[in-house]
Amino acid sequence: MPVCLVARQATFYIKIPPESRFLCKFASCFGGSRPPEAIIIMIRKAVILGTGNVAWQLAHSLPLFGYCVVQIFGRNAAKAEDLASAVGADHTDSYDEIYPDADIYIYAVADDAISEVVASVSTDSGVHVHTSGCVGIDVFEGSKSNYGVVYPLQTFTRNKKIDFSKVAIFFEANNASSRSRVEEFAKALSLKVFESNSEQRRMVHLAGVVGCNFANYLWSISYDILRQQGYPFRDVMLPLIEESLDKLRYMPPSEAQTGPARRGDTGTIAAHEALLADNSDIAAMYRMLSKMIADGSNYKYNRNRQ
Amino acid sequence: MPVCLVARQATFYIKIPPESRFLCKFASCFGGSRPPEAIIIMIRKAVILGTGNVAWQLAHSLPLFGYCVVQIFGRNAAKAEDLASAVGADHTDSYDEIYPDADIYIYAVADDAISEVVASVSTDSGVHVHTSGCVGIDVFEGSKSNYGVVYPLQTFTRNKKIDFSKVAIFFEANNASSRSRVEEFAKALSLKVFESNSEQRRMVHLAGVVGCNFANYLWSISYDILRQQGYPFRDVMLPLIEESLDKLRYMPPSEAQTGPARRGDTGTIAAHEALLADNSDIAAMYRMLSKMIADGSNYKYNRNRQ
Repeated sequence: MPVCLVARQATFYIKIPPESRFLCKFASCFGGSRPPEAIIIMIRKAVILGTGNVAWQLAHSLPLFGYCVVQIFGRNAAKAEDLASAVGADHTDSYDEIYPDADIYIYAVADDAISEVVASVSTDSGVHVHTSGCVGIDVFEGSKSNYGVVYPLQTFTRNKKIDFSKVAIFFEANNASSRSRVEEFAKALSLKVFESNSEQRRMVHLAGVVGCNFANYLWSISYDILRQQGYPFRDVMLPLIEESLDKLRYMPPSEAQTGPARRGDTGTIAAHEALLADNSDIAAMYRMLSKMIADGSNYKYNRNRQ
Repeated sequence: MPVCLVARQATFYIKIPPESRFLCKFASCFGGSRPPEAIIIMIRKAVILGTGNVAWQLAHSLPLFGYCVVQIFGRNAAKAEDLASAVGADHTDSYDEIYPDADIYIYAVADDAISEVVASVSTDSGVHVHTSGCVGIDVFEGSKSNYGVVYPLQTFTRNKKIDFSKVAIFFEANNASSRSRVEEFAKALSLKVFESNSEQRRMVHLAGVVGCNFANYLWSISYDILRQQGYPFRDVMLPLIEESLDKLRYMPPSEAQTGPARRGDTGTIAAHEALLADNSDIAAMYRMLSKMIADGSNYKYNRNRQ
């Protein structure tokens, strides 16, 4: 991690390697097309709580965006050490040893562990954010003074590094001071930053699950069907899915919809159901989705609902 | 259509513009890195029956691959004329006027119209192919001597031209002579050509419907949810879906699966179902897919089934 040379100071001179995108962002501020050799930057100190996929991605990406990861906390000591040593940070598995003077504490732990971890972190300095799509901002209430949420809408896999600058990030904060710091953090990470309250963020998360996790599951069924016929998924299906996705740059998905259910081709639907005779779950799913497409079922938003 | 200068002759000199991918393919055969000015090519004459999305794509693409579209047949005269004039072909809405001497007749009509159109075409010269994923090769039996199927696994939208060279194409033929001509046609179109019998092709089609049409439908629900929260689908969801898709270059979709159902996060699943309280269809779909992911349901192939 050559970007972050001095960890636990506030402001200092730092030499940043030319491959840093953070620097490239800054280069244009200086009016130059080539980045300078050295610049003065206010470095923010971040503590990451968690060792999962989101923690892994943040730990590897933050240094590129002017945030120095000073410490990784993990309830599993070995995992915390692994991640910390990979990014040149300190690590701990003890709540008592969490550095008390970081600028931002990022809770990238499982949704149902957030409240416990928040309650166990004693420092109230800096701003505290979690990264969950589904957990409310109120999980920090009564425990921290300045807090918020930074939710990146992305599917994270360890060892496949994300370009955060393209990821839509939804943020929320509990007061004006938190808001400026949380927004600054979100905008350092990404070019696509949206403010959203907890209710909106839950809807965004729902949209992500339906459009990404569920779509991936459908791909896994396609994969199995093709593999069992001896055809390679990558060569056969990827160009099809890529074209489907490419259409969405030109038209909404409802207009791009094709296939037997959209055409009302009941003969093909019946033939497919017969092919799925040995797979009752998948046949039921096929029937349900075909009916929804044929009926034109779409999401209805009730404005009067609380 | 500068590629196809002379339509209804067999072999002739032809000057092909350098942008033709067909020519680029050929250039390497001549050992040169730059295409020659003129070459001799056997041009195949194609009649396209149909005016829908597949017919539109083939009519626009065939000239790049050494096939000259000499005629478009459409039961709707105006549509046949429109497509034919766009690609410089002749057109007819009368079965009696279909040219009797083409090399290939391509039936790109609705699945349930294929048998009627096949029976109405009197010429038995050339090879006759349909492009359906679901209709058997036997639809030609008793009516034509040389026939087959060329099924491109792709989602076709009019006015958004496909690069056929990347599309997986599944072909089938009724005898050795048909086979050489059908395979030649498929390989002219695409670099990814697979032989498959009608049963295998139906399974491929099923895989395409599940992984493409159904996935697109899920995207349309995401689109509606986000739009009603005031967020733009293209900025917010496309990077997420692109990353999901990109993962499939490195791992099978079952390994790439993320989300609350995969994690067994029942709290989030219950929260999402509550958010869908006004959308009983979508809530039922959410429940079903979450359960299938949580259960690890996958496609099972019964080798003993007929």
